[in-house]
Amino acid sequence: MISPMKYCPQCSQPIRHGIPLGDDRTRHICDACGTIHYQNPKVIAGCIPVFGDRILLCRRAIEPRLGFWTLPAGFMELGETLAEAARREAREEAHVEVELEALYTLFSLPHISQVYAFFRGRMPAEEFSAGEESLEVRLFQEHEIPWDDLAFETVRRALRLFFQDRQGGNFIFRTEDLGPDPSRQRQG
Amino acid sequence: MISPMKYCPQCSQPIRHGIPLGDDRTRHICDACGTIHYQNPKVIAGCIPVFGDRILLCRRAIEPRLGFWTLPAGFMELGETLAEAARREAREEAHVEVELEALYTLFSLPHISQVYAFFRGRMPAEEFSAGEESLEVRLFQEHEIPWDDLAFETVRRALRLFFQDRQGGNFIFRTEDLGPDPSRQRQG
Repeated sequence: MISPMKYCPQCSQPIRHGIPLGDDRTRHICDACGTIHYQNPKVIAGCIPVFGDRILLCRRAIEPRLGFWTLPAGFMELGETLAEAARREAREEAHVEVELEALYTLFSLPHISQVYAFFRGRMPAEEFSAGEESLEVRLFQEHEIPWDDLAFETVRRALRLFFQDRQGGNFIFRTEDLGPDPSRQRQG
Repeated sequence: MISPMKYCPQCSQPIRHGIPLGDDRTRHICDACGTIHYQNPKVIAGCIPVFGDRILLCRRAIEPRLGFWTLPAGFMELGETLAEAARREAREEAHVEVELEALYTLFSLPHISQVYAFFRGRMPAEEFSAGEESLEVRLFQEHEIPWDDLAFETVRRALRLFFQDRQGGNFIFRTEDLGPDPSRQRQG
């Protein structure tokens, strides 16, 4: 996820890994120009697109998890709000316009240094198609969800909570910490 | 906030700014080794430490906004959860142990590419002192809050919401988008 830094992106000299004065973590330090290059977690924003009683999922055309089903989501870009990022990803991956409702889940994934945000989203029309990063896109009723073929634990967890809350008639915002995906650990 | 990249951190060759094939944004591209270096928003995690009816604030010993008051908060580190980051920052900046309650606010700041998360936090004891990044740390009742001397719009907004909700007897999680701080724009 986070690529190692070998040379200083400011001055091209070799990077040293060390703990700066007054810090307590190993950083990428350039002794030539004095810059400390910090690396931080990344934010992924997405949504649960809802049309009537069905949910829109995308089958991934790219690695990781090519061929598995996911909610439209992706890395937040510079200059975006969380909501803008979630809407953009839905547009890119599923050619769908969603009206975002409340932020629904916020997951911390410390093992891969990610923060994962899903909104609930309303599809005003049954209009969508596969974007470049999707093999296919389709609406699923709850009993049709391909639980064993979901791409990520974040997607599985968000959908579990969604159907649970929908049955109870009340959607509650949740923050959770998720570890490595148990089903994927078994695979390899 | 996001420093420009001049040389490839993988192979030290000059970086080109361009739009990769299949992308629609300008990226840092290394033609020598073929790596595209993405830059993404950063996450800041913090809390509102509460002791009885008082709130703990820190006066900043570092730039930006040296001398201004803030809630303990800072950049989330690799390998952390949001809650771990918020607790660590309270420990570092105010030498205070907080028991985090619910996530309270999540702000998007697209003009500086940040996502800002504040939890509500309970202080089990009146024990705190200034950490290295703080000039002083103290508890404030609502009428004592130095509104004109707060360091950041995120802090001002989180505290406004907090006191409003506390009066109503019900804390509601909120996501908001914040623009550039109007008071700081006036200053120049």
